[in-house]
Amino acid sequence: MNSAKYQIAVIGGTGALGFGLGLRWARAGHHIIIGSRAQDSADRAVERMRGLLPEARVSGLENGPAAAAAEIVVLTVPFSNQAPMLAAVHDGSQGKILVDVTVPLQPPKVRTVQLPPEGSAGQAAQKALGENVRVVSAFQNVAADHLAELDHDIDCDILVCGNDPDAREVVVGLAGDAGMRAWQAGRIENSVVAEALTSALIFMNNRYKIAGAGIRITG
Amino acid sequence: MNSAKYQIAVIGGTGALGFGLGLRWARAGHHIIIGSRAQDSADRAVERMRGLLPEARVSGLENGPAAAAAEIVVLTVPFSNQAPMLAAVHDGSQGKILVDVTVPLQPPKVRTVQLPPEGSAGQAAQKALGENVRVVSAFQNVAADHLAELDHDIDCDILVCGNDPDAREVVVGLAGDAGMRAWQAGRIENSVVAEALTSALIFMNNRYKIAGAGIRITG
Repeated sequence: MNSAKYQIAVIGGTGALGFGLGLRWARAGHHIIIGSRAQDSADRAVERMRGLLPEARVSGLENGPAAAAAEIVVLTVPFSNQAPMLAAVHDGSQGKILVDVTVPLQPPKVRTVQLPPEGSAGQAAQKALGENVRVVSAFQNVAADHLAELDHDIDCDILVCGNDPDAREVVVGLAGDAGMRAWQAGRIENSVVAEALTSALIFMNNRYKIAGAGIRITG
Repeated sequence: MNSAKYQIAVIGGTGALGFGLGLRWARAGHHIIIGSRAQDSADRAVERMRGLLPEARVSGLENGPAAAAAEIVVLTVPFSNQAPMLAAVHDGSQGKILVDVTVPLQPPKVRTVQLPPEGSAGQAAQKALGENVRVVSAFQNVAADHLAELDHDIDCDILVCGNDPDAREVVVGLAGDAGMRAWQAGRIENSVVAEALTSALIFMNNRYKIAGAGIRITG
């Protein structure tokens, strides 16, 4: 378990993935700020988190103010919402670590890799936010379904990519706080691995009737 | 073990990866044609393979004739040689399965993903050979070092991508014949996963002092 405790804004924190990550980080002692487009949605997610974890330090804000209030900003929104959400948190995330969890799935062909023109969603985030934000890409391959069950083991390693080694190591620590094994995996360009892998895993889930395929690093 | 036995041309079969795959397939009863740019290099690799596996059915040819003589063509060459080798085997591989093992590493920055304009080396192969060749992408993440040691367990799953499901399944079988667990992982666009993963694994080998990192699929 990491010793440092952070104020973490989870943009899209009302969704299954963001809520589950936030809940797990709250259990580890971090202060969670659930960001949403509407204050009342954020408030409902806060109540839900307190119901599951009474000791949680959690509050709710609209996305922009949530980012501004936090030390670390985590973006967990669908690909189609990534660009507007990056714009919403642009100013509030300057000088901070932004963890991008975006997977560039473009329905209906979600089993086939379709990458954005920037090369990856992680690179798109770095470009949109500028070099003053340390973008770290991670958590794309986590199945959201069981994340809010705090005792559920996550059978998937996390690849952590970004241009700043210290920021990567902070996110490796956050993964550990959420009960996951994580690896630094290189610069932000390498986020394409985990982003593209999601489509391959969806293909395999369907082809092999697996509930939630993931990866483990060996060696 | 697969029951069908194929004539397999291994283009670049004098290199560690191609030779090791060929040796393992020869052990499984396939007939291997080692392709090289020069007949005498091919002949030396043939002698070496017979020394390691006296019962091997193996012959050697220049690359173009090797492809023409085979039922399945396997391309195991460095990225910088992929385009000329595809041209060399273009005519000989028409109507066949071509297994592309190319990893788009561009030295010196091999720890950072750098993809070709086609999206992936697999897509580049499909484009260069045309729709009459069933391109299947696989084996990019296998560490070549221990492949020629026939008793060495390969601790890495193989992702098999291509547009033709039957061709993918043939290659899943070939992976099994070489002692590896393999998975169909979708269309040729998805080959970007395994290709990009190689740079991330090289990064991790260095960062975590692992001898040969690989992946396993879970779920």
